[in-house]
Amino acid sequence: MKITNTDVSHLVELLGTSTFTISGIFSAIQKKLDLFGVLMIGFITALGGGTILDLLIGIQPVSWMTDMTAVYVIGISGTVAVLFRGLLKSVRIPLFIFDTLGLGLYTVSGIQKGLRIGLNPMICIALGTISACFGAILRDMLLGTIPVLFKKEIYATACIAGGILYCLLLPFFELQISELIALSVICAIRIAAVKYKWQLPAVRSNDL
Amino acid sequence: MKITNTDVSHLVELLGTSTFTISGIFSAIQKKLDLFGVLMIGFITALGGGTILDLLIGIQPVSWMTDMTAVYVIGISGTVAVLFRGLLKSVRIPLFIFDTLGLGLYTVSGIQKGLRIGLNPMICIALGTISACFGAILRDMLLGTIPVLFKKEIYATACIAGGILYCLLLPFFELQISELIALSVICAIRIAAVKYKWQLPAVRSNDL
Amino acid sequence: MKITNTDVSHLVELLGTSTFTISGIFSAIQKKLDLFGVLMIGFITALGGGTILDLLIGIQPVSWMTDMTAVYVIGISGTVAVLFRGLLKSVRIPLFIFDTLGLGLYTVSGIQKGLRIGLNPMICIALGTISACFGAILRDMLLGTIPVLFKKEIYATACIAGGILYCLLLPFFELQISELIALSVICAIRIAAVKYKWQLPAVRSNDL
Repeated sequence: MKITNTDVSHLVELLGTSTFTISGIFSAIQKKLDLFGVLMIGFITALGGGTILDLLIGIQPVSWMTDMTAVYVIGISGTVAVLFRGLLKSVRIPLFIFDTLGLGLYTVSGIQKGLRIGLNPMICIALGTISACFGAILRDMLLGTIPVLFKKEIYATACIAGGILYCLLLPFFELQISELIALSVICAIRIAAVKYKWQLPAVRSNDL
Repeated sequence: MKITNTDVSHLVELLGTSTFTISGIFSAIQKKLDLFGVLMIGFITALGGGTILDLLIGIQPVSWMTDMTAVYVIGISGTVAVLFRGLLKSVRIPLFIFDTLGLGLYTVSGIQKGLRIGLNPMICIALGTISACFGAILRDMLLGTIPVLFKKEIYATACIAGGILYCLLLPFFELQISELIALSVICAIRIAAVKYKWQLPAVRSNDL
Repeated sequence: MKITNTDVSHLVELLGTSTFTISGIFSAIQKKLDLFGVLMIGFITALGGGTILDLLIGIQPVSWMTDMTAVYVIGISGTVAVLFRGLLKSVRIPLFIFDTLGLGLYTVSGIQKGLRIGLNPMICIALGTISACFGAILRDMLLGTIPVLFKKEIYATACIAGGILYCLLLPFFELQISELIALSVICAIRIAAVKYKWQLPAVRSNDL
């Protein structure tokens, strides 16, 4: 069996799924939800963005209902995260790396789904960003807080920048090369943003 | 005209719809919404779960748009609940019974919708639970509180347990018998949970 | 090139889209979101209602993905609103007028989408109201407050009243005439409600 690029990127995407789950569970525990609530927030954080993407373009039943790999990955990582929640802190750096890779791959694969049905590249970039970010937005809505993505983090912005680059590169390079470059850029922006505490300016006004 | 089992379960499901509406209206009144807001929360509590189920599997226009019975039931029970809101307290026990029956029947009919299009039983159980529970989750999101189902109640857990049982029984028993057993189990768990104040453990951690 | 009625109503609808965007941005600035958050709330306020409408009846990919005019209008008005946010106060009255016209036209065009696929007029009125109002409801959910439409404003009520009238007139008058009358009624109710501070009664109860 030859391991192809697609296999690798699918595997990395599942690592992302797993980290998204853990980030959801992490937030839910801080709000003192019960076991069902915690696992549910894990699922919604991991699958929410992709589900909205599927609904917007009409993939129904939505992807995770027909290919259940993501569901198993979430179930297992959710259980592990709940059981070993005391140790989550000590794996913060690998978790951050997987989360960043997941962010990039969700974006790229969301864009590809849009391009495949012939949508305008700008719309596809929006779809990729929705796929990568709306899980976390739903998580925060369910936990009763204003989405952190709207307030403090260069997160969606990394997806948008990488997505634009990806669409610009596609006509000139092979699929995998464009994917790899876009992915690296998304990860680089995200890592730099966290390391140097980059933030978008808040839009304020004294006059409102 | 012969009254069939399907008629009976459809009727009981509508009793559930009616109670879901009333529970929505009840919560909305406590938040001092206006008349439109109160009725809207009633509708969303009763139809929200089924609507999400329909969207996830691609039943469009969604069910309540083509079979309007549920809409009439909600309209009537909503109006009655608003007019006689002072008396709601004195019918708490019948309301609880209908709500529990509705919970069970929404679950079972959600599962059936999924099985009919050939989805994996685990996915179908998730669909049944979504159908039964997401109305209440949307209600709480709209009212600005963390969904009570995520915090304090054995509610979704009863659906999941009954749903698993239902799928295990189906190969061995007739449809109606499996349905009846699953329904009884869901109701029994729910009633016991309320009576004995069962709760799922909150997932806490001092280390986060 | 002859300018038709359809062109005019499409143009006015886009003015509405633009004002919905600005109202979203306005609310987001008050919550101190960052630039991405502010623009995102602008988009969701303007497109949210129409998106839910499309999903409920199965128009996928949703409209703004295939006809991108609305996306451009939102992008431009969003940018202008952020840049000149200090001046927003001084254009309050034109903004209110466009918002009201947008409300009316979203309602009417939502109803038409429903009638075109043969849904019951009551359902169509609900669809028109959803299309006009759910953007603002999503906006408030994302900003962590109970939707203002549920608490204090005659807003959805104007859509419902105008929608009922529209469906009653359709069998007797030409399309454009019915549309014009319904639109005028929606605007008149909305303007009167703001001018005379009409509100629906809150549904209260001492007994709950």
